[in-house]
Amino acid sequence: MDLRDILAGRRSVRDYLGQREITDAQLRQVFEAVRLSPSSYNLQPWEFVVVRSPERKKLLRACANDQAHVEEASAVVIVLGSLDPLLHAEDILSDRVIKGYYDEARKEKVMAILKARAADREYCRVWAVRSVSLAAMTLMLAAKGMGIDSCPIEGFEAAKVRAEFGIPDGYEVVMIVTLGFSSSPERPRLKRYGFDEIVHFEKFNH
Amino acid sequence: MDLRDILAGRRSVRDYLGQREITDAQLRQVFEAVRLSPSSYNLQPWEFVVVRSPERKKLLRACANDQAHVEEASAVVIVLGSLDPLLHAEDILSDRVIKGYYDEARKEKVMAILKARAADREYCRVWAVRSVSLAAMTLMLAAKGMGIDSCPIEGFEAAKVRAEFGIPDGYEVVMIVTLGFSSSPERPRLKRYGFDEIVHFEKFNH
Repeated sequence: MDLRDILAGRRSVRDYLGQREITDAQLRQVFEAVRLSPSSYNLQPWEFVVVRSPERKKLLRACANDQAHVEEASAVVIVLGSLDPLLHAEDILSDRVIKGYYDEARKEKVMAILKARAADREYCRVWAVRSVSLAAMTLMLAAKGMGIDSCPIEGFEAAKVRAEFGIPDGYEVVMIVTLGFSSSPERPRLKRYGFDEIVHFEKFNH
Repeated sequence: MDLRDILAGRRSVRDYLGQREITDAQLRQVFEAVRLSPSSYNLQPWEFVVVRSPERKKLLRACANDQAHVEEASAVVIVLGSLDPLLHAEDILSDRVIKGYYDEARKEKVMAILKARAADREYCRVWAVRSVSLAAMTLMLAAKGMGIDSCPIEGFEAAKVRAEFGIPDGYEVVMIVTLGFSSSPERPRLKRYGFDEIVHFEKFNH
């Protein structure tokens, strides 16, 4: 599907045809796109919990301010970010050496940078949220390209999600994304700021 | 351009044809896509400083660990996030009332939520980075759909960027994105984790 049509057609959908399923094959296709997202040093701090069973969706709804679409969506994705820049560092930086991007000295220098950063809790949160949100946008666009609607959610009790879904301490719950098929006619698009309101040239100037 | 081709073809490009320009019309088309990105409560905390002049790109390179592609790219985008959830709140929540999504009571309830959140500095940072990173992914995919390569950068001195580009205190420098046209043949893609490594079902289970 053409990207322009996907971008123009993507809406945050909260009314779903509850009975229509998202298959394993569809999920696999969506995540084959997601995994190609860029991330800082290619460290890919993203992991995802896909919730499809009626009982687990109901439980997740209870963690997400009782938003009905969390239960009614065909699948719900808990989007997680590892808070540890070192989690994949050895593996991923070695891949750069093998492929000729880095020499060993450069790899060691980057490892030292990551080690220093890993000690700063707030930095790690911002770092995780940044890379993982790039992947979350890919997720929603790839889904729309397959005719699957979505809605990103940030209104949830992270501690409750963590407890009910077994999320380890080393992960931030970055957002929740509902996936499914819209049951409602399109409503008017909400206001978006225009080019001249969001773009500055050469320096911040308005 | 088909999204699958865009996703498969997008790479983080650091070698650019420096002389090839990105026109105003191209920039406008890219940001017409960006502005359709979703954000929490549709608050759109994103703003962008587009840097194209050779002097200013050189200056930005000096703020970004001397990475050559910051100077050599055709255009460089400083991606900013407002740290104030209230900045557009009155305007954007009123839009919801006008379009029948909210009644006045719901609007006031959301305003109260946002006011409470605005007091929490770290929350505001995470909130801004999350929504703005969604827009940054749209930016890179929309650019690729127009044949424009990109590279996201998080290695920069935020305080220096802030000083040189006049960024007000109320904004986080979320990332920098270089835009241009690759001058090099494609190198091997770096390792990406597979579906089974990043996706859990029903709960976090590996």
